[in-house]
Parts: sequence; C-alpha cells; structure tokens
Amino acid sequence: MLDIKVTKTTAPKAKPDEKHLGFGNHYTDHMFIMDYTEGRGWHSPRIEPYHSLELDPAALVFHYAQECFEGMKAYRAANGRVLLFRPEKNAARMQSTHRRLCIPEIPVEDFVQAVKALVSVDKDWVPGEPDTSLYLRPFTIATEAHLGVKPSASYQFIIIASPSGAYYAEGMNPVKIYVEDEYVRATPGGTGYIKCGGNYAASLIGQMKAHDLGYSQVLWLDGVERKYVEEVGSMNCFFKIDGVIRTAPCVGTVLPGITRMSCIELLEKWGYKVDCESRLPIADVIRAGKEGKLEEVFGTGTAAVISPVGELRYEDEVLTINGFQTGPVTQRLYDTLTGIQWGTLPDDMGWTQEVE
Amino acid sequence: MLDIKVTKTTAPKAKPDEKHLGFGNHYTDHMFIMDYTEGRGWHSPRIEPYHSLELDPAALVFHYAQECFEGMKAYRAANGRVLLFRPEKNAARMQSTHRRLCIPEIPVEDFVQAVKALVSVDKDWVPGEPDTSLYLRPFTIATEAHLGVKPSASYQFIIIASPSGAYYAEGMNPVKIYVEDEYVRATPGGTGYIKCGGNYAASLIGQMKAHDLGYSQVLWLDGVERKYVEEVGSMNCFFKIDGVIRTAPCVGTVLPGITRMSCIELLEKWGYKVDCESRLPIADVIRAGKEGKLEEVFGTGTAAVISPVGELRYEDEVLTINGFQTGPVTQRLYDTLTGIQWGTLPDDMGWTQEVE
Ligand SMILES: Cc1ncc(COP(=O)(O)O)c(C=O)c1O
Ligand SMILES: Cc1ncc(COP(=O)(O)O)c(C=O)c1O
Repeated sequence: MLDIKVTKTTAPKAKPDEKHLGFGNHYTDHMFIMDYTEGRGWHSPRIEPYHSLELDPAALVFHYAQECFEGMKAYRAANGRVLLFRPEKNAARMQSTHRRLCIPEIPVEDFVQAVKALVSVDKDWVPGEPDTSLYLRPFTIATEAHLGVKPSASYQFIIIASPSGAYYAEGMNPVKIYVEDEYVRATPGGTGYIKCGGNYAASLIGQMKAHDLGYSQVLWLDGVERKYVEEVGSMNCFFKIDGVIRTAPCVGTVLPGITRMSCIELLEKWGYKVDCESRLPIADVIRAGKEGKLEEVFGTGTAAVISPVGELRYEDEVLTINGFQTGPVTQRLYDTLTGIQWGTLPDDMGWTQEVE
Repeated sequence: MLDIKVTKTTAPKAKPDEKHLGFGNHYTDHMFIMDYTEGRGWHSPRIEPYHSLELDPAALVFHYAQECFEGMKAYRAANGRVLLFRPEKNAARMQSTHRRLCIPEIPVEDFVQAVKALVSVDKDWVPGEPDTSLYLRPFTIATEAHLGVKPSASYQFIIIASPSGAYYAEGMNPVKIYVEDEYVRATPGGTGYIKCGGNYAASLIGQMKAHDLGYSQVLWLDGVERKYVEEVGSMNCFFKIDGVIRTAPCVGTVLPGITRMSCIELLEKWGYKVDCESRLPIADVIRAGKEGKLEEVFGTGTAAVISPVGELRYEDEVLTINGFQTGPVTQRLYDTLTGIQWGTLPDDMGWTQEVE
C-alpha cells in the first residue's frame, strides 16, 4: 500500500463544457507523482495540483526517450458511481514495458491504487454526458541529467487525467484504412509489444502519408516480410473471414491490447471461432475481400473501444467491407463493452472496479 | 542569418577540474534556444543562462518521443583557437532526422550559426588539457501539450554544452564487443538511420546484457535476417579483412556517422581498398577471424573518435583481433583525425571551422 500524500489545489479550474470536450484538450485539477531514486526505489507518492514539470535540459528523457505510458479511462455509471476497466491489466503491461526499457517496475497494486486515488480526488471531473469519460494517462520519464547512453538513475511516474468527449460524436462511422508497405512500425527483437514513446514517434510519418491519401489510419505489416497484418495506429485489428474471427498474435511486435484481449474473451464466450494465434497474410485478406468472404473488419482500443473499418487500401487494391456498414459482430462487441464500461449492462466478466 | 539575442549569466559557475571532467557531468553557463510555432516557423533564437525546462506534463515529448539530437565537439587548438569538425554535416543529418520525425527542418546555416554562437559565448569552457573537448548537444523536442498521437504544433531546438574529458584517460585500449542476436536496433522502413531518442531507449537492454556478460558494447546485426553486421552502440564499425576495409552501407538502418564518412575519405585518399557498399555477413567476419585474415576491427564516432576492438563474441565463438593490440590503420586514423580536430596537423581536407 502506498502512503499517498494529497495536496489539494486552492484554485480549482472551471470545468469544460461536457458537450465539446474533444480528446486531450483539458486536464483536471490534480496529478499523481512518484519518484524513483537509485538505491531508494520508488518513493514519495503524492497527489498535487496539476503543474508543469521542471527538468534539466540534460534529463535523459529528452535525449534517449527512456519513457513510456499507459492509456485507460474512468467511466461515470448510474448513481454517481465511477468505474475503471481492468486497470490491473494496464498495470501489468506497464511492468512489461518498464522491463524492456530497463526502468524499475512498479507493483501492480501500487499502480492501481495510484490511479484510483487520483480519480477519487478528481471525481467531479469524470464527465456524465453519454459516451464521455475521464481519460487517464500514467507515464514514466527518465529524469537524470546526464548525456551518456545508459538507464537513468532516477525516474518520475506521473498520472494526468483529461475529460474526453464521445469518440463517435457523430455516430459510429466506419473508417478508411491504408495498408502501409514502406514504413515499418515494429520488428521481432524490437519494442513493438510495449508502449514506449519511440514507437509512436516512428509511426507519425506513416500516419501523415495515410492522411494525405485520404485515409484516417495505417494498418502496419510485419517488419521482416511485410506480408502479415499487425495492427492499426493505436488499435489492434480484427478480421472476420468466412465465419472465423482473426487478429494478429501478440508475439513481440504487436501491442497486447486490453480491448483486444476482452474482445477475444467475449467472442469465445459467445461461441465464435477465434484465431488469434496464427499470422494473417494481407494477401489472404485481399483474396477474401474479392471472394466476398471478408465479412467484417474492426479495430479495438481504449480510445475508440471498437472502430468499424469500411475500406482497406493495399497497394492498388481498394476493398469495401460490408458495404461500408458496421457489421453485427462489430456492433455487438461495441454494445457489450461500452455497456460493461459505463455500467449499463451487468459485469458478468468481473472486469470493472469501482472508485470509492 | 539568425538574429540571436544573447542574455549573459550574472552568476557564472565555477569551472570544473579539467583533469577529471568525465563525460556529461558538467554544463556550461549558457544554452541556445529557438522556438517553433505552427504558422510562424522557427523563431526567437536566443542564448540564455543555462536553466531548467518547464513543460506541461502533457507535452508530446514525454509521451510519443518526438525528439532527436546531434552530437559534436569544439576542440581547443594552439593560440586559443577553437575548432569545430564538419558542423554542416551534423546540421544536414539533423535535417534528415527532422524529416523522418515530421519535425520542420532547420536550415543548415542556422544550425551552424547557433552552434558557433553558443561556443563563442562559452569559449572559456572549451577545455585545454590534452584530448579534452567541449561536447555539444543540439536537440529538438515536441512541446505541444496534447495527448493525441500527431506531430506537435510547437517545438524547441536547444543546444547545451558539456566540457568532457579525454575518452582514453588511460591510453587507447581495445574494447570487447558482444554481437547481439536477440534484440534488434533497426529495420528497413524504421528509424535506424536517424538520431531519434527512441533508437537509444530500445538499445539499452542489449547494452545491459553485454555488460553483464563482460563486454563493453554491442555489435548490432540487421533486423530482418540477423545475418549482416550493422553498427556498435554509438559507433559505426570497420573491419579490415584480407587487406580490404569494410563497413556496413548506410541504407536506412545504419546511422551515417560523420567520423565514418571522414575515415572512408581518408582511407581512400591513402590508397586503401574500401568497401562501404556491400553488406558484410557476420559469418564472413568469424571465418576471416579463424583463418587469420581479420586484421583489424575498430569503431568510429564523435565520442571515441576511433576505438580499437580487441575481442568479438558471437554466439559461442570468441575472436581475439590482432592479439588485442591496436592495429596500424586504426592508429593512423586516430592520429590523423585527432590531429586535424585539435589543429596539430594541417587540415588538408578543409574539415575544420574556427569559432570567432
Ligand atoms: C499501438 C497500439 N496498439 C493497440 C492499442 C490498443 O490497446 P488497448 O486496447 O489496451 O487500448 C493501443 C492503445 O493503447 C496502441 O497504442
Ligand atoms: C547509433 C550511432 N552510430 C554511429 C555514431 C557515430 O556517428 P558520428 O561519427 O557522427 O559521431 C553515433 C554517434 O553519433 C551513433 O549514435
């Protein structure tokens, strides 16, 4: 158990209009901070008024990107209850990320306790409009001022929170996805399976290219053969082909999404045939599309929950999926997950935790 | 031409002992800063007293590692002259890095002018002990406070400077290198050819593994077949095999080192046979070693200039190179480059620029 010291703000900010929140535009009154010092471990957990970080320009985070993050949400349910969705999974993934980056781990219980403590202090900031949420961003940065390439001797683990609007402000619309065959996101032996900053910096150029071509997101192929589908921007990607639901295995190059994991569990419970262990060649996706067997495609992630894909472009081939309509499995997953998250459906899976 | 506003410190720091500088432990009195704002471009170039950076915790650099850097040195020559080594090459490489990371470029002349301006203001900090230098660290960070994955709308380009000790404080000793076959540094379509922070964060784990096994650095293999040699930690790597000097081609996965480029130019001028265009399988290196044809191995980089390699380990094979002695080509390159850099040899190549 962390002994979290809470210092409340004396100048609370005005709350933004819940009808026009957008994403990442507003921050709550407080933030959680915990320090790591070599020899002393993680210490001084505290909640403070939201404030700037003051760092030496030689701090390692600015030079060698020893930094990583998580993304999760707090949901307002009926009667003022506030729910988290599988926060222990984010905590465990953060540990895996820390290990790959040579950052000392944070115990799962401490991570979850810190998240709950911040949400509790800023509970009024969890918006109540339909489909809005409080987006939570735990992140770790290397703070030692030193120019040698080496693991930092000090870190800060921080959580900030941002009230966020409905992802589908204009209703759930299928997106158009560009299959990238020039730039690579991840490779075996690399960092594709963790949430480190460097993965995202490297992906910006592919995203810009897709935008320029009129696509909203990139579907990445594997970095070795550029043959197998991996994931989409900040979502895992599912394909329903001839009755079987497939998604890339998480074997080192694909982020193990918590929404992905939850979808697989639901689909199996519902009796669908799911294959999340064999790799899926993009050529098979294209062939299935041409043969009329590509029934549904959707992305999964904390931000969008489920995002139907209406069009895929790979080289010169353009596939329209399910007549650019949201398919039934896509819709059922969306309804079930959002129902559990916002507490309008019973949580049979035991996935939510209430914040006191 | 930048119009650089200079604000001098009113509290100069005590200079450190030039005999015990180490690397990255001390920073000069001033720093250079320039801002980028969308719609306005790069603006407000200035030199200020060295100070902390104050950034919103949502600044994009902390989350998606949109950050990059350069590394170069200022050398004290006779009669108080201060020299830079091919600074326009660092400027051009920084442009290539910015492009890959979707950061607006800085003109080469502006970069070089900024470096010179800072060195000029902090000229007293360029140490004069043999083989010491003022290490210069230009870097760019994404400063916009936003949690969406997208190129930042604002950046800071900063230069800090750190007086650094002789790299070979105890004489030039060959190092032991571990050939890494589990972790991967770079892959085609990725960011191996640029100096972005993410590459270095991803490499820490391999470096720690090599240290644990008693090796000082890692030699990375290509990310696709793990078959071809690429580069070492923060150095390019050269192999003299049966009279031919070979180094990995810079085709997307290897940083185009300025020391590498300079070595190739010198070696060709001296009449050596150089092959920097074909890939070199690690198996060929091992075979050459066993047949007694692996004459010299050395790393090249701004920090070490030239670093002789005395031992290579790949899987279960351990090769000793040139009886763990510095070879003649290695020594000649070191003497020539350091002679040019510190101004004790004539600069026939036109590589140095004096700071007024
Ligand atoms: C690269 C990447 N893949 C997949 C996901 C989906 O993961 P999750 O469902 O845990 O949000 C995310 C977002 O977190 C991501 O950044
Ligand atoms: C990964 C990497 N390779 C090679 C080098 C050598 O480049 P340079 O000779 O320009 O210092 C460096 C250091 O800058 C580096 O970081």
